Amino acid sequence: MSILVRTIHRLFVIEMKEKYDKLLSKTKEIQVVGEIQQLMGWDTEVMMPKGAVMQRSEQQAYLAMHNHHKQIDPEIGILLKEIKEDKEFENLSFIEKRNIYLIQRDYDKATKVPPEFVAEFTKASVIATEVWKEARKENDFAKFLPHLEKVFELSKKLANYLNPDLHPYDVLLDFFEPSMSIEKYNEIFNPLKEATIELIRKCNESPNKPDKTIIKRKVPLNIQEKISLDIMKLLDYDLERGRLDTAAHPFTTGSYDDVRITTRYLEDNFTSSLFAVAHEGGHGCYDQNIAKEQRYLPVGNYCSMGVHESQSRFYENIIGRSKSFWWYYLPRLKEISEEIFKDVEYKEFLLAINRVEPSLIRVEADEVTYNLHIILRFELERDLFEDKIKIADLPELWKDKMKEMLGVDVPNDSDGVLQDIHWSGGSFGYFPTYTLGNVYGAQFFAKLKQDIPDWNEQLEKGNVNVLTDWLKKNVQEKGNLYDPPELVKEVTGEFLNPNYLIEHLNEKYSQLYEF
Amino acid sequence: MSILVRTIHRLFVIEMKEKYDKLLSKTKEIQVVGEIQQLMGWDTEVMMPKGAVMQRSEQQAYLAMHNHHKQIDPEIGILLKEIKEDKEFENLSFIEKRNIYLIQRDYDKATKVPPEFVAEFTKASVIATEVWKEARKENDFAKFLPHLEKVFELSKKLANYLNPDLHPYDVLLDFFEPSMSIEKYNEIFNPLKEATIELIRKCNESPNKPDKTIIKRKVPLNIQEKISLDIMKLLDYDLERGRLDTAAHPFTTGSYDDVRITTRYLEDNFTSSLFAVAHEGGHGCYDQNIAKEQRYLPVGNYCSMGVHESQSRFYENIIGRSKSFWWYYLPRLKEISEEIFKDVEYKEFLLAINRVEPSLIRVEADEVTYNLHIILRFELERDLFEDKIKIADLPELWKDKMKEMLGVDVPNDSDGVLQDIHWSGGSFGYFPTYTLGNVYGAQFFAKLKQDIPDWNEQLEKGNVNVLTDWLKKNVQEKGNLYDPPELVKEVTGEFLNPNYLIEHLNEKYSQLYEF
Repeated sequence: MSILVRTIHRLFVIEMKEKYDKLLSKTKEIQVVGEIQQLMGWDTEVMMPKGAVMQRSEQQAYLAMHNHHKQIDPEIGILLKEIKEDKEFENLSFIEKRNIYLIQRDYDKATKVPPEFVAEFTKASVIATEVWKEARKENDFAKFLPHLEKVFELSKKLANYLNPDLHPYDVLLDFFEPSMSIEKYNEIFNPLKEATIELIRKCNESPNKPDKTIIKRKVPLNIQEKISLDIMKLLDYDLERGRLDTAAHPFTTGSYDDVRITTRYLEDNFTSSLFAVAHEGGHGCYDQNIAKEQRYLPVGNYCSMGVHESQSRFYENIIGRSKSFWWYYLPRLKEISEEIFKDVEYKEFLLAINRVEPSLIRVEADEVTYNLHIILRFELERDLFEDKIKIADLPELWKDKMKEMLGVDVPNDSDGVLQDIHWSGGSFGYFPTYTLGNVYGAQFFAKLKQDIPDWNEQLEKGNVNVLTDWLKKNVQEKGNLYDPPELVKEVTGEFLNPNYLIEHLNEKYSQLYEF
Repeated sequence: MSILVRTIHRLFVIEMKEKYDKLLSKTKEIQVVGEIQQLMGWDTEVMMPKGAVMQRSEQQAYLAMHNHHKQIDPEIGILLKEIKEDKEFENLSFIEKRNIYLIQRDYDKATKVPPEFVAEFTKASVIATEVWKEARKENDFAKFLPHLEKVFELSKKLANYLNPDLHPYDVLLDFFEPSMSIEKYNEIFNPLKEATIELIRKCNESPNKPDKTIIKRKVPLNIQEKISLDIMKLLDYDLERGRLDTAAHPFTTGSYDDVRITTRYLEDNFTSSLFAVAHEGGHGCYDQNIAKEQRYLPVGNYCSMGVHESQSRFYENIIGRSKSFWWYYLPRLKEISEEIFKDVEYKEFLLAINRVEPSLIRVEADEVTYNLHIILRFELERDLFEDKIKIADLPELWKDKMKEMLGVDVPNDSDGVLQDIHWSGGSFGYFPTYTLGNVYGAQFFAKLKQDIPDWNEQLEKGNVNVLTDWLKKNVQEKGNLYDPPELVKEVTGEFLNPNYLIEHLNEKYSQLYEF
């Protein structure tokens, strides 16, 4: 190249770089404001004095509005357009292009929906959630019905704003989990459903009956707190960059160097907190472990809800309820809890914490039956959006499906169709990501077993970090470098395949229940 | 008035009202962002994981910048100008005019100083504070000297930006405490200094010698926590709208329905936390008790640093270390602390918690000697700004004054001129507000005694709320309706008069030390 051409070329590159940097400084600010919102949300649940509810809602409303304004800043749109039209665009690195892609995706989400509609949707879902609380308390679906119908209609409208060319439920499924659709979920959930029903039948027929009384032994809170700290250390959750508190419903919030998890302690069910700490600890480790060099970039976020859930469920179930882990941990638990579990045998303990037991409530369900609770919700949502069923028919359909899939009689709507908050808030399409987390997790696990053939001996020795390091390196550090399907391909060399979960469950539970 | 004139008049009023409301919505947002900053500050000191320091500083820097932009919004200046020039301005209510006045005052403070200077000042004081920490540790004033000189020069420059027509120290004194000046402080501090030195002499000469061993008895932390809660309840601090936590240095933060106080527990000095809780509780009650109808208005802030300090010191000293309070509370303390203080006698306990003892460190000083620590700092600041002394001479002057005023030999600069953080941060003019709090408090107390002649019997019965209700109604609820001198006049019917503090101290300590 001549000097002139080189100089012009460099000027273009500089101009492009400046635009790119400006764009990233804008999205970094959005992230920083988001972190402040997370802190306030945490404080609201964990620390805030009761009387401050109204004052806090003013603060939260202000920051939400402020952040929304930043998200819809027209300059973001202009910069995106200019960068993409620039001749130099093709010369951007993989990560730079991915950042641009993610910024465009978020910008579209924030700007395709008119502000008046956002206000209408927010208002309707806030009211619906309040009515849902009452309706659940009073077992009165009829009271909730018109509000749920309204929120459902608005959800369809939202989908239409986001992408008028696609089926609305496909739009919402993709909204909560990038690249998912009705068809893809059908492909995963249909075989999983069939296999799970069969597995539950076998467990039920087994002569091995779990002894639940073991886990109902009273464990004082100070001992449960010791167990929590011990579990967090084993899982490599970094307490220098996080903390554990108690909240009404366990959750995780924060990012990078400030990731906080919560649990709740029940004196007569110590496993409730133990597995909550493992679950939230898994979420927490993911947020802590995203690669340092990706921080504050769009690729420095987590990949998706489903992948986040894959980590929490990996820590809670695949590690936390495994045969190998408890070979190591039961003696340690006996030591920490002094006399309480002295007489407990390994095999009966393992069966007690892994009992398969069809029940009414999703959040209390075990590792096996849980997925059917999700598939039930997915099928209802799908049929609603395909106009095959009506909102008004949900209570009866719920009962039928619970009987059909889990063999459970639903005695009332409070413990049936009214049990979850999600629909009242307009989150149609969210539920499936929970089970997707299990599907991802099992596929990761299959690859981990190939990479670390002695994984179970390591667990038996208490070297949990051999597994968590693998997850960190292969999944967590990558943040949002890939959409979920590509991440799964990148990590495991294969596209998503529900058979890994089916095999994992069949293998684990046939051993436990001996069939 | 004709219909036309009335209509035009009404239109003017509407226009004026719209401008006024717009202005107030802007200042309300500034306040809401300020509340979020307070929450983050609290979290940083009390809850934040160690590793999150850098991440937090990004969040704090963002909000500080955001709030600064809001404070210097030119539209505030335009609205202020238009409202003041409006014919209807004179018809605004007292409160409306006061709001306008306070908005103008804050706007001037925020806009009179060029942003480049703010950046320079901030940078210099951050560096000076870091060097100060090292210099104090190493007892090396020479190391700190150039930085302190720089910060001092910048403080003079700051004063010049704020008001070039006044003596710079007058500007800074008024900055920290509205309507104060060198002359006014001289008028208050000179007689107070003389009387205090005389009072200390008499206490020293008294045969009554306090027995400090009483308060060094070990009190387990769980008992100290019980005492804290008990004290907060007695002082009417509302725990539904606040909370108590521990921090390295006790502080209070928040406003209205979310006011949080902190303390620290020393096993072998339970009074440290007890009086910290009373002190911070006093700050906290003030913030909680500002009248509801003034919230989010400029008049819904506290009046001044000095008035804030008057409340904390009233709760801590005037109530918390009084003869009458302990007549009631010592038996209760004995009950709460089980066997620990069983044998302690009322009189010896009272003298122990009120011992007058000249010492090196301001923050550990007693109610009497404390004011001399402040007056010493005021005199040095004043002489610096009047070019009578040099920064380089501060260590020796400090030693001379400590000897002269308190009879104390200063063994090193770490426990002398280097003990406080304030100067390194450029807060020249701040110290005097601490003693001003005592002066306000004693004058309020004199009026309270007139209004409630049986105040001491009420305290002896544990009816602390009789006193705190008076403070709430007369001082706290008023928020920022008046500048400090007018507030004192409004509450007590008199202008500020240091004799009330002198009389209060003389009366209290002549009884305790029996002279």
